[in-house]
Amino acid sequence: MLDTTRRGTAEIISALREEMSERGLDAFLLPRFDAHQGEYVAPHDQRLAYVTGFSGSAGMAIVTAKTVALFVDGRYQVQVRNECAGPLFSHHHIFNEPPECWLAENAQPAWRVGYDAMHLPPSWFDRFARACDTVEAVLLAQDTNPVDAIWPDQPPLPMGRISAFPLQYSGRTSKEKSLELAADLKRESADFIVDTQPDNIAWLLNVRGSDVAFNPMPHSFILAGRDGRVVWFVADKKLDVSLRESIPDHVGLQPFEAFLPELETRIAAGQRVMIDPEFSPVAVRQTLEKIGAEILPRKGLITLAKAVKNVTELQGIRNCHLDDGVAWTEFHAWLSATVPSRAKAGNPVSEREAEEKILELRQARPGFISESFNSISAAAGNAAMCHYATSPERNAPILPENPYLLDSGGQYETGTTDATRSYAFGPRPEGYDRAYTAVYKAFHALMTLRFPKGTQGHHIDAICRRPLWDLGLDYDHGTGHGVGHQLSVHEQPQRIGKPYNPVDLKPGMVLSIEPGYYEAGAFGIRIENLVEIVEENDGFLAFRNLTFAPIETRMLLVDKLTAQERQWINAYHEELRKTFSPHLSPATRRWLDAATADI
Amino acid sequence: MLDTTRRGTAEIISALREEMSERGLDAFLLPRFDAHQGEYVAPHDQRLAYVTGFSGSAGMAIVTAKTVALFVDGRYQVQVRNECAGPLFSHHHIFNEPPECWLAENAQPAWRVGYDAMHLPPSWFDRFARACDTVEAVLLAQDTNPVDAIWPDQPPLPMGRISAFPLQYSGRTSKEKSLELAADLKRESADFIVDTQPDNIAWLLNVRGSDVAFNPMPHSFILAGRDGRVVWFVADKKLDVSLRESIPDHVGLQPFEAFLPELETRIAAGQRVMIDPEFSPVAVRQTLEKIGAEILPRKGLITLAKAVKNVTELQGIRNCHLDDGVAWTEFHAWLSATVPSRAKAGNPVSEREAEEKILELRQARPGFISESFNSISAAAGNAAMCHYATSPERNAPILPENPYLLDSGGQYETGTTDATRSYAFGPRPEGYDRAYTAVYKAFHALMTLRFPKGTQGHHIDAICRRPLWDLGLDYDHGTGHGVGHQLSVHEQPQRIGKPYNPVDLKPGMVLSIEPGYYEAGAFGIRIENLVEIVEENDGFLAFRNLTFAPIETRMLLVDKLTAQERQWINAYHEELRKTFSPHLSPATRRWLDAATADI
Repeated sequence: MLDTTRRGTAEIISALREEMSERGLDAFLLPRFDAHQGEYVAPHDQRLAYVTGFSGSAGMAIVTAKTVALFVDGRYQVQVRNECAGPLFSHHHIFNEPPECWLAENAQPAWRVGYDAMHLPPSWFDRFARACDTVEAVLLAQDTNPVDAIWPDQPPLPMGRISAFPLQYSGRTSKEKSLELAADLKRESADFIVDTQPDNIAWLLNVRGSDVAFNPMPHSFILAGRDGRVVWFVADKKLDVSLRESIPDHVGLQPFEAFLPELETRIAAGQRVMIDPEFSPVAVRQTLEKIGAEILPRKGLITLAKAVKNVTELQGIRNCHLDDGVAWTEFHAWLSATVPSRAKAGNPVSEREAEEKILELRQARPGFISESFNSISAAAGNAAMCHYATSPERNAPILPENPYLLDSGGQYETGTTDATRSYAFGPRPEGYDRAYTAVYKAFHALMTLRFPKGTQGHHIDAICRRPLWDLGLDYDHGTGHGVGHQLSVHEQPQRIGKPYNPVDLKPGMVLSIEPGYYEAGAFGIRIENLVEIVEENDGFLAFRNLTFAPIETRMLLVDKLTAQERQWINAYHEELRKTFSPHLSPATRRWLDAATADI
Repeated sequence: MLDTTRRGTAEIISALREEMSERGLDAFLLPRFDAHQGEYVAPHDQRLAYVTGFSGSAGMAIVTAKTVALFVDGRYQVQVRNECAGPLFSHHHIFNEPPECWLAENAQPAWRVGYDAMHLPPSWFDRFARACDTVEAVLLAQDTNPVDAIWPDQPPLPMGRISAFPLQYSGRTSKEKSLELAADLKRESADFIVDTQPDNIAWLLNVRGSDVAFNPMPHSFILAGRDGRVVWFVADKKLDVSLRESIPDHVGLQPFEAFLPELETRIAAGQRVMIDPEFSPVAVRQTLEKIGAEILPRKGLITLAKAVKNVTELQGIRNCHLDDGVAWTEFHAWLSATVPSRAKAGNPVSEREAEEKILELRQARPGFISESFNSISAAAGNAAMCHYATSPERNAPILPENPYLLDSGGQYETGTTDATRSYAFGPRPEGYDRAYTAVYKAFHALMTLRFPKGTQGHHIDAICRRPLWDLGLDYDHGTGHGVGHQLSVHEQPQRIGKPYNPVDLKPGMVLSIEPGYYEAGAFGIRIENLVEIVEENDGFLAFRNLTFAPIETRMLLVDKLTAQERQWINAYHEELRKTFSPHLSPATRRWLDAATADI
């Protein structure tokens, strides 16, 4: 949340307009992106939130002398109207009324439209460039960001400590990975790849950092060549002593600020350089154009290599899920007992208390580092908001008469977890059990799927939705996202969802499976496990379950389940009991036996 | 099939090379396309077959002095090697080794590569242009097709009679359709649309023709404007008298040959003209470029409008399916009785006899015009070839010990039908029943699907495949294609399949649902019905069944079916019996009652 002592929004916007006017700008493009295109940005980079008050994880503003046009996706339509109310703003759906269309309609000929070339990916830039073309406006890169100029108390750039990520967890040396990348570059007839994504760099160099909450990877840039060498642009003072002493031969250090100038020095005209057109700053492409390099805009090679986990990574991921599962099980037992008793005592458990409880239980697990994202701990109607977050001011009680949802995960030394469970403590609202049963059927449908090689995420999304469609229900979010290995909990490029995503699902990829159903103002339901993709004997692929956390059965309408659906959950719980019972207190064990009894 | 008295292939290729040499060409691009981009081409346009002997429905050749490189898709890999054997040819998979890549690898600098601009869509042209660019070869449009120059007995252009398609079947006048098209053009800020696809033109002008087998639509071209007027480029002598007298006001006739010159006269520089980049000749785009018109390459507006059938069209389609279903039922009864008895008598029913039988039964139905495609009548291992066709030389017996497959359809006055059934007469080969049961489950899964608006064909394809995937099986063809209204049996743009097809499935669209399973050399199984998309009360969409033909139940492993799967087929057969019994002979009725008894 933003500091409440901040200047008023009107004052900030007015200062920004003054700054724009001094620079001769009629409009300024203000995306939420930083230079690394991630979902989480450091306080230093929260320019969109600083100027507009919008705290969501994606979106952009176009600031003109007359208005601040805000563009956010379906998840944030309500939130943005709460956080950015009043006549200062106009509100738009980022997909239905894209910002470039708004610009084409609202810009005047000869308008000067400013942007920060480090914060706009090439694909975005191109859309704005076309829009400006149609109205004969011009796009102007700003040497310094105008928001920084009017932000007196802007937090400094993050300087999180960077340490080596040991081979026992990574399974492969950075040298091996870099040589393989070099081979990939050769195969693509490319000389270099430039990468700016923190998780790609952390993976390639076997390092971990702490520049941004929940994401154990540093902000830096790299230039990797077909000779297997990597130039790493990183603030030297971030490196911890042992890392500085153990930088491998193939990695050359350069200052963070030297990134663009060094590209000019190191890349010659005509050389072929790969960049990711969706996940890189357009400043890189502009630099390459200036050099006269040939640009190969492709989905990142490192993104693809990182997504397929090696056996060491997979073993680590399986292991940390066992620890995480103990925490989930203990949490579940605690929640089941405490919600009714504390409510009776007139001192109900709160949403924040619950998310702190699972954090505390995780902290007791070996290898736990931090949460992997901001938990969604949501009672009753709050759970219908897919990106609900508690705060000191927003912290509802969890009452026995209302369902509750927890979406939560951890960073462990050996991997990243992410799971969601839905809970009820007594009678449920009208329609809850019917929807909960459909969500379980949806979850089961995908968990048990077998599919041939060449299948992509958009092919199988509907298999998950069908049990909901049968009832005329649906959910307005993706079905599954990639998950990193002690890296980002939302990892590219694998994904299960409706949008076209031409990436083959491959053995070794890790994904979430998380169908849900949301009834505004009433309740939200989601069941989420992580899975790894495995190849079966006949060459077909399947999902191997990673997450072990009890799934509530009391809300299942058993007569609506098929025999397989009943057998699956009984077998799941049996495996869970076998695995966890030795690690649980006698009381929790007794609770678990009862809570996961066969249906 | 080709005339067996034709010149030898070697002689023809040698003549073509001589012709190319006279024109100074190093290579000639020879696609199967005619100027109308359809699946069926007239004998006049079978240039690829004339030169190479390849008789498949898609593919292309690149003829050079050294080789004839043949490019066909997965369906035709075997066939092309049979039909075009020997050292004259090299064989390539059209998707895995695209012809433009072959050209880029094999062409020499300064090569002159000829093509016929009426036979290459813009998207294909662009790929070849890029390939030529990379090797500094040049693409040269040929004023006349070099194949025509060496084809002494080339059949003449088809001159099939064109007649009016009555309002009682079309439901809307051509004027109404043209005004709606004009409104679409205005909305897209376009001045004109050029269309060369026979089914689009037949639909827009409410005419039907007979230039190509199975396809009741004429070869012609149109230029339609935002004023609602349509210029129709068509050979005058094709029009039947009553049509010539009833050409509506908004349609202006022009000679077929005047097409490109008239575009130059009627379109001014700067005007905006829509063309379909996949389904139009590049000659049109080149003419527009010459004029200086602005080209809007979009999926055809007429293609989209035609795909959503109006209520009159839908009623007609439903009606002709009842007639078609009577023919299927009578055929099924005949087949069940005749195959065993004739085999016993030592005079087994042949594949050709069976396809002639269903044709004869259809011919007895009111409103029947012709077959809608070349039936696939395939016994035993022949059914494993998805595009098998009988011929006088290739005509296997249907023996009681082998399964049999019939894929067949009709053109009726009120619509087009297409269905497939798989039959068995006695014991089945190992694995047949297991696969047949899975194919039925796959068919049932999609027939009963409900889905929200915005769903596209590639989203739901896997729902159909899943029952096969569960067993490690799959089929290597699409799951469903669009079907026209007394037009092409393969209609754009709706489709259910793995490839990305960004077209929303909409109420009023007609599609096939046709999963299958094929075991090379042994058997092929397919079950196919047509469906229309309907909107249900809660706003979800569903498939409404159109096809009524008994589905064999003796090969179903009933214990592998869910209750719903059993109920669905029982209800389907009950409806079929109720509808058809009054129209059947007592003997057929008795057979039907037994053959479709509840399982």
